Amino acid sequence: MNESTSREELIEVLRKAPSVALFSHVSPDGDCVGSMLAIGLALEKMGKEVSFYNPDPLPSYLAFLPGSSRIRPDFPYPQPKTLLFVDCTDFQRVNLSLSEISSESTVLNLDHHISNQLFGHFNWVDAQASASAEIALTLINQLGVEIDRDMATNLYTALVTDTGCFRYSSTTAQTHRLAAELLDLGLDISGIHHNIFDQKPLAQIKLLQCALSGLEILADGQLAVMILNLEDFRKCGAEQEMSEGLVNYAQSIVGVEVVVLLKEVGPQEIKGGLRSNLWLNVNEIAAQFGGGGHKRAAGCTIRLAMAKAKQSIITAIEEALKSGRDH
Amino acid sequence: MNESTSREELIEVLRKAPSVALFSHVSPDGDCVGSMLAIGLALEKMGKEVSFYNPDPLPSYLAFLPGSSRIRPDFPYPQPKTLLFVDCTDFQRVNLSLSEISSESTVLNLDHHISNQLFGHFNWVDAQASASAEIALTLINQLGVEIDRDMATNLYTALVTDTGCFRYSSTTAQTHRLAAELLDLGLDISGIHHNIFDQKPLAQIKLLQCALSGLEILADGQLAVMILNLEDFRKCGAEQEMSEGLVNYAQSIVGVEVVVLLKEVGPQEIKGGLRSNLWLNVNEIAAQFGGGGHKRAAGCTIRLAMAKAKQSIITAIEEALKSGRDH
Repeated sequence: MNESTSREELIEVLRKAPSVALFSHVSPDGDCVGSMLAIGLALEKMGKEVSFYNPDPLPSYLAFLPGSSRIRPDFPYPQPKTLLFVDCTDFQRVNLSLSEISSESTVLNLDHHISNQLFGHFNWVDAQASASAEIALTLINQLGVEIDRDMATNLYTALVTDTGCFRYSSTTAQTHRLAAELLDLGLDISGIHHNIFDQKPLAQIKLLQCALSGLEILADGQLAVMILNLEDFRKCGAEQEMSEGLVNYAQSIVGVEVVVLLKEVGPQEIKGGLRSNLWLNVNEIAAQFGGGGHKRAAGCTIRLAMAKAKQSIITAIEEALKSGRDH
Repeated sequence: MNESTSREELIEVLRKAPSVALFSHVSPDGDCVGSMLAIGLALEKMGKEVSFYNPDPLPSYLAFLPGSSRIRPDFPYPQPKTLLFVDCTDFQRVNLSLSEISSESTVLNLDHHISNQLFGHFNWVDAQASASAEIALTLINQLGVEIDRDMATNLYTALVTDTGCFRYSSTTAQTHRLAAELLDLGLDISGIHHNIFDQKPLAQIKLLQCALSGLEILADGQLAVMILNLEDFRKCGAEQEMSEGLVNYAQSIVGVEVVVLLKEVGPQEIKGGLRSNLWLNVNEIAAQFGGGGHKRAAGCTIRLAMAKAKQSIITAIEEALKSGRDH
């Protein structure tokens, strides 16, 4: 596909299209769903036919989003000539094969990931944007559609979820300016936050309790270790993915620089999730166990029994903490 | 004191004053301290002598605020003629007696609480502001002082702490516009958030684990009950005030409408903290036990042993939930 990056052409294609199919990525999150819905609702206001696609079921915390019940896991038929991919780094993110796309279709790609593969005929990729919602809002404004509360609810949810409530370092002055523009429409932000953040399964809270009950603080208070065995998940009635975010609790303890959560996923198979607060490069530690990630967040799989896996990773972290202090 | 509410006169007094003493309230929080420091640093930039007062020690999570080490618990001597009270609803909030204030002093009162007593000679009270920081930023702009990073760090911290990261319903479009103005100065927001939110004592995390271990879900999943006995605090090495915020965890469970945390504070003395999510009026429930508060957050003291206190409040809540559904 031609790698033109002209946002003006993308806008022009949308303006002229009588019908548009919108696509969002697997494991849907607030940004891909909210941005897709907001753009779709805006295109509908312009009189276009619109369809929404996502390959996976929507997580329950996003079910309140206006328009969300219209999202389908099937490729729209008949296939519109204009296809807009929202928040997808590459074509694979939507679980479709290229052969399903008609050669007559125009592929539009709107995203904020720096790793975006510019797979569209026309691409609007802005890695400075904290969320695809920032681009979506600019697009809707440029299409000349007046933002309504349904669109604003979708876009605000997208901003909030992708920036961790304006906390992540990706948040910019522009993010806040766009949030202000949305709040001008009189959004019920307490209601939105309740829908997004207060829908935790009881099993997840039980799993938190379980992880905290075994919390160990080592290395003069700099290292926090949490363990979850298969039996813990069974006991709490929790799914594996519910351990997501548990490290944050240990990370917020004063003096803690690094946290490791060791999760038993099978016999002799331990998943290690690592986070650091200020300086320790956990990517290097994960790499020692064949894993990787980023400086402040990384992971690895250790093929040992829990006790041995725990001992090895604690030793590696303690050494890294020590050599860090020596520098 | 004369209850003039003219902000123009307040600004004029500050403009002319050669030295200003700034005051913030007992149990200092991010807003009173951050707003006070930002205004003081701005006045200093105008060439004025400035002193900062707070009766209590600063919580450790605010120690990173530029200028915070200059805050003193003593009334400044010699007493400047201009005294500015920041974020204080009334004069008692600073633990000073009126007699300590010279009759020649001009008292200025800058606040965002609707219950403000307009105790100053000149008052700038705006109950629409999500934080006193909103007023402080407007004031600094009107004084013609260019905001620098130190002031911005103070003001951003004040905004973030008083709005729960822009989540509370007090947050407005204007709050986000002011945040944008501050972020334009290139703040390190991850660093600020780490300082504010990731400084929890280990004892507090242990108390969370303890409270969650006894979590009960009743009334078809609508009611969550948590218990903390004196022995739990002792075991965790936790202070009473560390139970603050624990209700939030139970409140975020899907389906839960109301949470009660019962805390033993002495023999036959149980403090009940109540929160509701969407509709239940917990103020009415607290009132049945001689307490009170707001619709969504209230408290009471029950003079019974824990088991009996628990049974009575559960009965009261279950009845309220039932009659709510009947309406």
